[in-house]
Amino acid sequence: MKTFVKQYQCTLCGQVFSPSPTAETCPSCGEKGILDIEYDYETMKKTVDRKYFQNNQDFSMWRYQPLMSVESDDIGKMLHVGWTPLYQAVRLNQEIKVKALYIKDEGVNPSASLKDRASAVAVLKAMEAKKTVISCSSTGNAASSLACHAARMGLKSVIFVPKRAPLGKVTQLMVYGTTLISVDGDYRQTFNLSKQAIEAYGWYNRNAAINPHLVEGKKTVALEIAEQLDFSPTDWVAVSVGDGCTIAGVCKGFYDLLMLGLIKKMPRLLGVQSEGCDPFCQAWKTKSPLKECEENTIADSIAVGIPRNPIKAQKAVANSDGAWIAVSDADILAAMKQLGSREGIFGEPAGVAALAGIQKAVHEGIIKTTETVTFIMTGNGLKDPENARKAVGAPVLLKPDLLALENYLKERGEFKHV
Amino acid sequence: MKTFVKQYQCTLCGQVFSPSPTAETCPSCGEKGILDIEYDYETMKKTVDRKYFQNNQDFSMWRYQPLMSVESDDIGKMLHVGWTPLYQAVRLNQEIKVKALYIKDEGVNPSASLKDRASAVAVLKAMEAKKTVISCSSTGNAASSLACHAARMGLKSVIFVPKRAPLGKVTQLMVYGTTLISVDGDYRQTFNLSKQAIEAYGWYNRNAAINPHLVEGKKTVALEIAEQLDFSPTDWVAVSVGDGCTIAGVCKGFYDLLMLGLIKKMPRLLGVQSEGCDPFCQAWKTKSPLKECEENTIADSIAVGIPRNPIKAQKAVANSDGAWIAVSDADILAAMKQLGSREGIFGEPAGVAALAGIQKAVHEGIIKTTETVTFIMTGNGLKDPENARKAVGAPVLLKPDLLALENYLKERGEFKHV
Repeated sequence: MKTFVKQYQCTLCGQVFSPSPTAETCPSCGEKGILDIEYDYETMKKTVDRKYFQNNQDFSMWRYQPLMSVESDDIGKMLHVGWTPLYQAVRLNQEIKVKALYIKDEGVNPSASLKDRASAVAVLKAMEAKKTVISCSSTGNAASSLACHAARMGLKSVIFVPKRAPLGKVTQLMVYGTTLISVDGDYRQTFNLSKQAIEAYGWYNRNAAINPHLVEGKKTVALEIAEQLDFSPTDWVAVSVGDGCTIAGVCKGFYDLLMLGLIKKMPRLLGVQSEGCDPFCQAWKTKSPLKECEENTIADSIAVGIPRNPIKAQKAVANSDGAWIAVSDADILAAMKQLGSREGIFGEPAGVAALAGIQKAVHEGIIKTTETVTFIMTGNGLKDPENARKAVGAPVLLKPDLLALENYLKERGEFKHV
Repeated sequence: MKTFVKQYQCTLCGQVFSPSPTAETCPSCGEKGILDIEYDYETMKKTVDRKYFQNNQDFSMWRYQPLMSVESDDIGKMLHVGWTPLYQAVRLNQEIKVKALYIKDEGVNPSASLKDRASAVAVLKAMEAKKTVISCSSTGNAASSLACHAARMGLKSVIFVPKRAPLGKVTQLMVYGTTLISVDGDYRQTFNLSKQAIEAYGWYNRNAAINPHLVEGKKTVALEIAEQLDFSPTDWVAVSVGDGCTIAGVCKGFYDLLMLGLIKKMPRLLGVQSEGCDPFCQAWKTKSPLKECEENTIADSIAVGIPRNPIKAQKAVANSDGAWIAVSDADILAAMKQLGSREGIFGEPAGVAALAGIQKAVHEGIIKTTETVTFIMTGNGLKDPENARKAVGAPVLLKPDLLALENYLKERGEFKHV
């Protein structure tokens, strides 16, 4: 399929380049010169209008292919990614108290996180580039989603993880048949080995931020939110932030729709980090450049001390008149229980951090109670049962006896319900 | 919404009863007198035809509401269940070698298993009956799906688990805010306490087999398989079997479509059990009544020594000219790796058991290579990382060094791929 891609532009020096499936960062600026894919919106407009969506029977992220950089004919063979539910959260909002609250549940994607949107694109771009091996270094959702989609499409994946990677996540990767390289070293050593190997062997690179197509996959979450709300997105959209690629994608999606005249204004973006690792929040609060932070939080998917996509992420919040906020691990665990018990959605710590952020932002007056909000729940709680246990504690053992049960329920003040 | 329910009939004595949201088993036959819900197909036919489905924009299990026993107006408030992907498994079938192989991926439901279909119905029926508390005893997917959907709809759930319940599954329940009753006893003591409490307090009963509406929820998986294959389902449909309710539901779904003239013949059902707990297979092989079995398998979701829905399950296989087959835990672990690495789908042991069963059935000539097969993957592998670890083993640690990497890849014979 023909795309409407015009050119790639370096976010640092502004230089423009011709489209290519293997493009990485700007040759002049090096690793910090992250490329942005630019579209010919005037021509795109002739195809992509409200009617296009009304008639579209593809209920997956690929209904947005004309807004993306993927040319592949293999889309029909992929696992089903996207068109995840957007729920109005009436019960949860009895506690948050904004005008209306929505949850975008990304935990029901094939590998159970939003990262499937990026990895699906990466796998198709690798195939366009005639690569048979695709690689990244990661311990988390990027890795599992890559291994998942590579397996489905018959590509080999090579994934580098540091020694400290939790065995549960490593297991998921191995079930997907990835070639797992468990590095006897820290994350930096792991990343460096992956970089050397990718260069030496010519593998396709799915490392975050370096590959400009990944953001184009992630932006589909914003396109869906807008369409699911009949192209009137909420005043605010909140998402947790690690390396900055996801919030950059969310921004790009809404920007596309604005350029196409399909939405009237950008939602304000709330970037949520954990207090244990909040370089974006620090930089925003002190109006100073991003500084490396410790990675000291239970929300491992956003524990990124040196974010790799800072420029796009900072622009996303600044240009949307948004805000940054940091929440504690205790806030995150409380939000996990709240989301589970009020809405029946089980999120991993990084997934529910944005909900904790919304509550704090409402409390601080950043988000007004007269405004509407969407909360992007980025990953399934089943990915990290260890930390979920911290949210709920251990169960109390009870004798198999009706009287014991009755007393237990009374003690907990629950007997009135029965 | 009006339904087409005609009456309830006892599967044991044949007595018929008027519809009721709180109906349980047959008063004459007791717990073994499981009820079957019967429909007025002649009247249903006037509404439910091919055109009804062509025009239906509800892509969830509720597109089949006219074929079900749910009257509730609250369906729109539920979490999104069903219309899960049906994938053609081209890569996996290079190993299985049947005419065509399809995978129905139930792991992407809200609580990550097929049981969401039954629990969603149970919660709506409880609301129809004006109950505010719903209860069951289970350690597995029935419990987590019930807690999930009850939370979303604002019902209280009380779930009884035996002491041995794995902490991971218990954690998920507690995040959903269930009132967890952890019983200091075995499963039988736990079930009995739940039964006493449900009777004493008048809670809504979601115990498997006792509630006749659960099968009506589960049958939607078969309705979807048929519709996704344009009403020409595969020659065989394989599903793993524990208490027998799921295979009974699969049978009922295809039966409905046959009665409506929407499909021409019933697919043959392959009931798959684990060799460590295979009462149905034993009874079938020896042509004798069902006998209690030990529960000695890693596939905990189908480890049911005394199945609670034997009659419907046995009829499902017999009437469809199907077969029973048992697979070993080793077969199950091999199928888990195979499914993950060939198709990018991570299934729990009970979820992949049916795939192991298909392979064995092909090997034994029960399924012919000229036939088409659907494999129902009932639950997500993230629910049970402990057992998945047994499938893949532990990773090998590698020095952060390119030469070490090169040697490692060569040793594994993988360097040819790079």
